[in-house]
Amino acid sequence: MKQEIKAQKFNWIDISSPTEHDIKYLKKKFRIHPLVLDELINPSPRPRVEPHKDYLFMVLYYPIYNVKTRETSSRELNIIISKKAIITSHYETIPPLKTLFDNCRFNKQSQKTYLSEETGQLLYYILSAFWQNCFKKLEKIDERINNIEKHIFGGKEKEMVLEISLVKTDIINFWRIIEPQKEVLESLLKEGLEFFGESFLPYFSDVLGTYERVSNALETHKETILALEDTNQSLLSTRINEIMKVLTTFSVVMLPLTLIASIWGMNFSRSLPLTNSPIGFWLISFLMFVVSVIMIIYFRKKKWL
Amino acid sequence: MKQEIKAQKFNWIDISSPTEHDIKYLKKKFRIHPLVLDELINPSPRPRVEPHKDYLFMVLYYPIYNVKTRETSSRELNIIISKKAIITSHYETIPPLKTLFDNCRFNKQSQKTYLSEETGQLLYYILSAFWQNCFKKLEKIDERINNIEKHIFGGKEKEMVLEISLVKTDIINFWRIIEPQKEVLESLLKEGLEFFGESFLPYFSDVLGTYERVSNALETHKETILALEDTNQSLLSTRINEIMKVLTTFSVVMLPLTLIASIWGMNFSRSLPLTNSPIGFWLISFLMFVVSVIMIIYFRKKKWL
Amino acid sequence: MKQEIKAQKFNWIDISSPTEHDIKYLKKKFRIHPLVLDELINPSPRPRVEPHKDYLFMVLYYPIYNVKTRETSSRELNIIISKKAIITSHYETIPPLKTLFDNCRFNKQSQKTYLSEETGQLLYYILSAFWQNCFKKLEKIDERINNIEKHIFGGKEKEMVLEISLVKTDIINFWRIIEPQKEVLESLLKEGLEFFGESFLPYFSDVLGTYERVSNALETHKETILALEDTNQSLLSTRINEIMKVLTTFSVVMLPLTLIASIWGMNFSRSLPLTNSPIGFWLISFLMFVVSVIMIIYFRKKKWL
Amino acid sequence: MKQEIKAQKFNWIDISSPTEHDIKYLKKKFRIHPLVLDELINPSPRPRVEPHKDYLFMVLYYPIYNVKTRETSSRELNIIISKKAIITSHYETIPPLKTLFDNCRFNKQSQKTYLSEETGQLLYYILSAFWQNCFKKLEKIDERINNIEKHIFGGKEKEMVLEISLVKTDIINFWRIIEPQKEVLESLLKEGLEFFGESFLPYFSDVLGTYERVSNALETHKETILALEDTNQSLLSTRINEIMKVLTTFSVVMLPLTLIASIWGMNFSRSLPLTNSPIGFWLISFLMFVVSVIMIIYFRKKKWL
Amino acid sequence: MKQEIKAQKFNWIDISSPTEHDIKYLKKKFRIHPLVLDELINPSPRPRVEPHKDYLFMVLYYPIYNVKTRETSSRELNIIISKKAIITSHYETIPPLKTLFDNCRFNKQSQKTYLSEETGQLLYYILSAFWQNCFKKLEKIDERINNIEKHIFGGKEKEMVLEISLVKTDIINFWRIIEPQKEVLESLLKEGLEFFGESFLPYFSDVLGTYERVSNALETHKETILALEDTNQSLLSTRINEIMKVLTTFSVVMLPLTLIASIWGMNFSRSLPLTNSPIGFWLISFLMFVVSVIMIIYFRKKKWL
Repeated sequence: MKQEIKAQKFNWIDISSPTEHDIKYLKKKFRIHPLVLDELINPSPRPRVEPHKDYLFMVLYYPIYNVKTRETSSRELNIIISKKAIITSHYETIPPLKTLFDNCRFNKQSQKTYLSEETGQLLYYILSAFWQNCFKKLEKIDERINNIEKHIFGGKEKEMVLEISLVKTDIINFWRIIEPQKEVLESLLKEGLEFFGESFLPYFSDVLGTYERVSNALETHKETILALEDTNQSLLSTRINEIMKVLTTFSVVMLPLTLIASIWGMNFSRSLPLTNSPIGFWLISFLMFVVSVIMIIYFRKKKWL
Repeated sequence: MKQEIKAQKFNWIDISSPTEHDIKYLKKKFRIHPLVLDELINPSPRPRVEPHKDYLFMVLYYPIYNVKTRETSSRELNIIISKKAIITSHYETIPPLKTLFDNCRFNKQSQKTYLSEETGQLLYYILSAFWQNCFKKLEKIDERINNIEKHIFGGKEKEMVLEISLVKTDIINFWRIIEPQKEVLESLLKEGLEFFGESFLPYFSDVLGTYERVSNALETHKETILALEDTNQSLLSTRINEIMKVLTTFSVVMLPLTLIASIWGMNFSRSLPLTNSPIGFWLISFLMFVVSVIMIIYFRKKKWL
Repeated sequence: MKQEIKAQKFNWIDISSPTEHDIKYLKKKFRIHPLVLDELINPSPRPRVEPHKDYLFMVLYYPIYNVKTRETSSRELNIIISKKAIITSHYETIPPLKTLFDNCRFNKQSQKTYLSEETGQLLYYILSAFWQNCFKKLEKIDERINNIEKHIFGGKEKEMVLEISLVKTDIINFWRIIEPQKEVLESLLKEGLEFFGESFLPYFSDVLGTYERVSNALETHKETILALEDTNQSLLSTRINEIMKVLTTFSVVMLPLTLIASIWGMNFSRSLPLTNSPIGFWLISFLMFVVSVIMIIYFRKKKWL
Repeated sequence: MKQEIKAQKFNWIDISSPTEHDIKYLKKKFRIHPLVLDELINPSPRPRVEPHKDYLFMVLYYPIYNVKTRETSSRELNIIISKKAIITSHYETIPPLKTLFDNCRFNKQSQKTYLSEETGQLLYYILSAFWQNCFKKLEKIDERINNIEKHIFGGKEKEMVLEISLVKTDIINFWRIIEPQKEVLESLLKEGLEFFGESFLPYFSDVLGTYERVSNALETHKETILALEDTNQSLLSTRINEIMKVLTTFSVVMLPLTLIASIWGMNFSRSLPLTNSPIGFWLISFLMFVVSVIMIIYFRKKKWL
Repeated sequence: MKQEIKAQKFNWIDISSPTEHDIKYLKKKFRIHPLVLDELINPSPRPRVEPHKDYLFMVLYYPIYNVKTRETSSRELNIIISKKAIITSHYETIPPLKTLFDNCRFNKQSQKTYLSEETGQLLYYILSAFWQNCFKKLEKIDERINNIEKHIFGGKEKEMVLEISLVKTDIINFWRIIEPQKEVLESLLKEGLEFFGESFLPYFSDVLGTYERVSNALETHKETILALEDTNQSLLSTRINEIMKVLTTFSVVMLPLTLIASIWGMNFSRSLPLTNSPIGFWLISFLMFVVSVIMIIYFRKKKWL
């Protein structure tokens, strides 16, 4: 589906799920290299900036969190930018892009802000929205981390193992998506200056700055969740070890008693002592009691119980 | 609650828990952008410095340790600074700010020191107090670490697991609060120079230096507590393993004895040897004794006991 | 086997599994130092660039993944490059080199692209293909990592232990092969400029850039697999610990029951209570039932079950 | 206790355990700021350099190893240095300072070396002795590490757990003491140049170099002990696991035998087979033998024994 | 034992196990400072370069692998270098030095290469041989690592624990020996230039380059062995856990059966059901069979078996 906004100095064409028909239209109208148009249809393996004669071609990835599967996946955004047009192409909705595009279509104020200057400025607003939006995701991760912390010290170590693993995987996937894009922003700084002129330096370094804040915040989250994982593991293993120790000690107290009972269960009709005594049973029961008391005292003294 | 101090060249307005009324007053008197005033009322998600035409807007976070819940949380401090006024706004008390403000109100000497020059100097004193005060917190953490160290080697490994986890979480939360503020101080160095002039460079780099000392000390504490956690875990697991080994070995010694007793408990009235012997029981008891002695010697030799 | 392509300004000689005969030919035709020719026949221990008077000698390693043994090993590529000829020598097939060579032999278009300029350009195309090709390998590793992630949270932790170890070893071997070649590319930048002139700077820094992207992607993969390994281990150990706890608790419930049964199995014909009672068995069975219920309630309360 | 050496150009006053009387003397004679004099009496929380109008005030910490408690603690050294005097103040003995002071008092040759020039040079000799002396401590740590290494591979893993923990804590405490002093030496380089003139640059950078060598050596020791701890833990856990496996396997072999014996211990006077057979006991014993042999063979085949 | 080679411009004196006599000879002939000569006889604690008026004094350590004890230890090499002589002194044989010295003595070609220029060049050849030789050691470590990798995935995890620990300790000891020598080479670059003139810059930076390649390769080996250790530990612990789980499950299946047998072993002559039934034993055996089948099915379903 192709949508177009006509601004004073340029057109913004947003294509979602590009069809053969859209590609033909672009080929005809903008003389874009067939290999670039191919990439609009097929998924591109890596984010990058490609300088062409009359335009720049960019491949970006936007991290998106799926509440159902609790997973972070990436959505591809292709941007072709020339002096006269900016073409954004994607398969699935990229929320910050959609918001910006709809604002530019229906809101006069936004049109003034975003579309009154050159394509370079619009690219800046798109990239800026793209990265600013990541902060919201980071805040959600922050909440989940605070939540985990509260539960760990509230005695729910076991339940938190999976939750910690999920948040950690979420952070790592987020990081795997944004990490390779640093290079894109850095090469945009170089290629962009050549293409748009020096006046765009503050714009693009602002975007790089936003990226770096996102990246630092993610790093902080990563270290925090790793430390919490360690903490949880050590609390959990201390607790499990305690339980196992108590259970094992209990078994060990039972064993000699069972041995004693088994001994007087042997069929030595003539030689087994006390069997005919009227208090034999009570004597042996007393013996068992003494043995267990001694063992418990010993274990207490050794601090095993 | 709004409080105001009038100095020679500027006013210091401190607002705690700003109300609609305070906001209107600020709007009317200082022509501050509505979005900035909004942030005074609502919590801001990230620390930052925002340069405006006539003033700088800063969002800072102050780490505060709650003795009851044993947790470190952050309190937000908003600063609006122009040539003629410095406005500090916060919801909860920020101790070093309160001390400074009260000194400036009631102490003539302090007024001379802090209020006789421009707003830039006062900002320096506020930020300086803000970060200097973190050292006291760090010293408390230091004490707790020394305390942990003493107990670990005093045989209280188990009790220290939770204490180590708490101190570690405390350090990490502290770090999570101050880490993103480095960027604020760095951009203050840039924006501040533009706003206040070059003569403020030594002041702001002094604040950055204090921040870096806090940050380094925190890093040292972090590494120390991580090393202590490792040490504690390895001492603890060695001890638990020893206990489990002894208990298991004891069980293993019991088992063959129980088997022997069970064997002579079988109902083979005709074929079970020794059952009618007058010393049968004593022979089997002797057998058990021999078996257990052999096992204990074997385990000793193998160093399992 | 020696193959030769004659271009306008130079010859490309590709030798696979060089024989004595090939070496003699090279010695005669290009006056190459005997020690260099020796290295063509014998494996060289380290990648490097050696500047000689009339030519550069390079030793490179190409990482190759063996689908059968699931291992990454390296294949050596020796390049001798002068103004008039480029000699590539290797024992086993280097896929990207073979593709390039075959293209240059049979495809007119490729000949135009790759062979119309100087040997420096061809070297750039060879190195570029060499490193670009590594991305395909990295994408396969990426797929495997995604696959592992899916299975870990799908409850197949145990099965993933070996798969994670294999992918990790694969990444490490890949890294061990490419890591020492950074230095080669850096010294090529220096030696190459002296040899080919300054116009080759963008070519060789492009190759270095490609290397660095490969290296960064590999680093990302390494951190990801390490985090997944940790996650898997903690999920796995939590699960195993749970199982062991349940099993041990079950044993502990059985033990007192067995003790009770053994006690009433003792041969105290006169003193053992209840033995002649008509409901003795049922009373003891009830006792066992009560004991086991109390223990289960106790363990439930302590959250051990 | 105050001791004084008079050199040609300046006096060296060394005060151990400063009293009120000493403080008054200093106040009267050198016009030192009361806050600085306060710090001579009270412990200072952090190492630092404070430039004053006529003098520099330094707070340093010297790491000292207590052989009895096997702990590394720090001793504070305060230095006040002007053009005409150098005052060193401390509570407990600082060995390298004491050696230097005594040499300067009694040894003519030392006086010539250390006291013939300006206070800057003497400061250099004091700091140099301070840091050079740390090497001796590092060598002792080195010896202890070598000793641990020898014992680990000599089968004393268990005994080494505590020793490793002690050495690690020792290294970490050492590091915690010297780490914050880097900043002191760096700011001395700056402040010192202003105070003493540029000719002192090589002296102070030599001290900084010595500090960095101490710091690097400590880093090496830290990494080494961490690696040894890992090695020890993995050797130890492998050994414990082996023992537990053997013990558990042994229990598992015993259990079916006990079950068999218990089965023929049941009181089924009419239906229990073989009870009246003259070889019943021997048949069951043979059954037990067969069962245990099968289990052992099975465990051997599975490599569990 | 003193050996001497006379070159055109200088003498090379190699002393192994220096005696008092050798020291006197050096003192007399070269006017070397007594403290330096002392160090030739006594072991020096740290590698370093000491510039003196007429000569440089260097202390180096050469890592040597003892095949018998499987340990890496260091051998000290002292070098005194003036314009007219180079003195190498050591206690034990330093293989690369011995090879070079013997070549210079007996091989005319080598004499031409190594001795025809100034002492600076010879120092370069000695240091170069010294560090180049480390690569051979690194290749042996590489082989051992590959060997470990093959065995880990071949099911010999247990046997590899010790081998991994040995290789790791070997790498760490190697690293501990060469790490402090970086500083020596860096200060040689500075002192050496002053002493020998600027033309020696490429020589000494070549040696530093070789050192850095050794250091990088060692770093790669260290990371590889650490990753392999982790992998081995996780494979091993997964395997041990599996075994323990199976063994424990087996015990748990045995326990209720033993309880049943014990129950019918109780001496309730009147109230124990089925004791007089002709099929009592078979009914109870069937009960045991049913109980064990149910448990096994339950454990299978829970994936515990």
